[in-house]
Amino acid sequence: MSGGSARDISEFALLERLRNKLGSVGNDADVIVGNGDDAAVIKAADGKCWVVTCDAQVGGVHFPSPENVSGFAVGYKSLAVNMSDVAAMGGRPRFALISLGIPEETPISFLDEMYGGVRALSEQYDILVLGGNVTRTSGPLFVDVFLVGEVVEEKVLRRSGANTGDRILVTGHLGDAAAGLHFSSRSHIQLGEDVRASLTRAQLEPQPRVAEGTAIAESGLATAMMDISDGLAGDIRHLCEASGVGTVLWESELPVSSILIEAASVAEKKPMEWALHGGEDYELLVTTPDESVGALQEVVRQAGGASLTPIGEIVPSSEGISLKRADGIFALENFAWEHFSA
Amino acid sequence: MSGGSARDISEFALLERLRNKLGSVGNDADVIVGNGDDAAVIKAADGKCWVVTCDAQVGGVHFPSPENVSGFAVGYKSLAVNMSDVAAMGGRPRFALISLGIPEETPISFLDEMYGGVRALSEQYDILVLGGNVTRTSGPLFVDVFLVGEVVEEKVLRRSGANTGDRILVTGHLGDAAAGLHFSSRSHIQLGEDVRASLTRAQLEPQPRVAEGTAIAESGLATAMMDISDGLAGDIRHLCEASGVGTVLWESELPVSSILIEAASVAEKKPMEWALHGGEDYELLVTTPDESVGALQEVVRQAGGASLTPIGEIVPSSEGISLKRADGIFALENFAWEHFSA
Repeated sequence: MSGGSARDISEFALLERLRNKLGSVGNDADVIVGNGDDAAVIKAADGKCWVVTCDAQVGGVHFPSPENVSGFAVGYKSLAVNMSDVAAMGGRPRFALISLGIPEETPISFLDEMYGGVRALSEQYDILVLGGNVTRTSGPLFVDVFLVGEVVEEKVLRRSGANTGDRILVTGHLGDAAAGLHFSSRSHIQLGEDVRASLTRAQLEPQPRVAEGTAIAESGLATAMMDISDGLAGDIRHLCEASGVGTVLWESELPVSSILIEAASVAEKKPMEWALHGGEDYELLVTTPDESVGALQEVVRQAGGASLTPIGEIVPSSEGISLKRADGIFALENFAWEHFSA
Repeated sequence: MSGGSARDISEFALLERLRNKLGSVGNDADVIVGNGDDAAVIKAADGKCWVVTCDAQVGGVHFPSPENVSGFAVGYKSLAVNMSDVAAMGGRPRFALISLGIPEETPISFLDEMYGGVRALSEQYDILVLGGNVTRTSGPLFVDVFLVGEVVEEKVLRRSGANTGDRILVTGHLGDAAAGLHFSSRSHIQLGEDVRASLTRAQLEPQPRVAEGTAIAESGLATAMMDISDGLAGDIRHLCEASGVGTVLWESELPVSSILIEAASVAEKKPMEWALHGGEDYELLVTTPDESVGALQEVVRQAGGASLTPIGEIVPSSEGISLKRADGIFALENFAWEHFSA
């Protein structure tokens, strides 16, 4: 297609189009991982590599207008989502550049809070902000972060290494951020204060899985890794395509929090819908041979990380992508939460 | 100030604020140049460094709406302005990430042309596009480019190395881009077709001075370098502040093209106003000891680069920043072309 407008095509398809039009310009000895993974990887000194990625947060798309969200949350999340991509390659975040598009009516106090949100995370994880760029815009605020992480070359974890027979594991819980988004526009609905606060935090201040990602990479036990940003059901497809495999996910094993179950009951939703198709979990999806599952869980536990739960297995690609439920095995439709169609 | 909105503060001040709030988080052995230069520099392998920078082009600010500009020009310029920053450190551009905010009504054909503009430059300079990000936005199109270049550590050229007695030189011509901008909204004004086309090209498709920047850095003859993006009068101030010096610019020596003189006559403007205060020249400003001027010009000539013209001298900071004209020496007011106040 070349007629039509951006309205007619998903974000993912637009990005693919960009990659196809631009990404095939030569190959470079300094490039360890190019287009199409969570982040690119280029050589640095002494067997180290730099992991480079970028992701933007845009007002009205990723967060509401300044009146309805804290600057702290916007700053925090803009860095966190990029840290998640770096962690998904096994990398430790090191340096950031921040590129801002600022509407004239943005309160200075909001920007200061936003820098505070970036700083909270950058101090916690010892990330150096090397600079950035500021421009005005007549549109909504955008916060574009470029993040450079570090990883040892032979420890880099791609999406493409999963093998038939591997187990699939996921860090933390799924669906809380999607539930947080759901309730963010429904302040009139009765919901326990703690539950609401916890879901809001999951949505606005996701904890990037840096300790988990680096420990998993260093262990050498995993075969593939990626982060879940657009929902498990959609993102597992990217991992399967990159690895040339299929998968069976076990519905009964998907880790959901007790607050998600409570919130789903109030919202009259199925928790599994949020866990499978909700977005912005920023958890890590990892594959490892069956016999390494226990060791990998121990590695993450010792790193002080989140839980690491087996949620399925890798099968031949001919078997496709499916969900095993109590009542049978069903093909898992690909309707990932995408920003463009949200 | 912490009341007020972004309307009340310049882009430069907002960027300074960002740097002050974020840039002082520790110091890192891998950081060669941190905040506040044209680009940051971090260590890579074998004495090499990566030069990293970002700059965004926003619809309605840096270019008109898609109906009034070619996608090619938007793509080309979004990469070119970043290449200019890398070149200003003496670096050779290597890898890019592209982060797009796309309004739904953007024609796919416009995006394809835009990728074509990026590709034209990336192929010419052998720059690998490692990936990027796509998000929708309710605001204007933004094209945010993160560029990684390469430079040998001891050849890095900062803004801070200029010494009293040095000469100041500039590549190419000044003011053409500003004149192009002036006439872009005045299509009714009679102007030779060649002159208009040439000024438009200077504005929309600036030629990044990569050959010149890398040759100057490799020669070891220069003491400081930066690119001119917001107008000579404003940018020389940044170089002087970083180096702790003052300067006298020689008005009669500022390199202006014959087409600028013709255009200024039609517009009833002074060519020197565009040359001093116009923006988006993307020429390099270099300082070197008096005795090295000839050798440096020869280096750039042999690199097949643009002209390199002496335009002034570095003086003690107590003498400030001034312009030497036929009728005397005058303090040079700092009213740089800034996107925020344009």
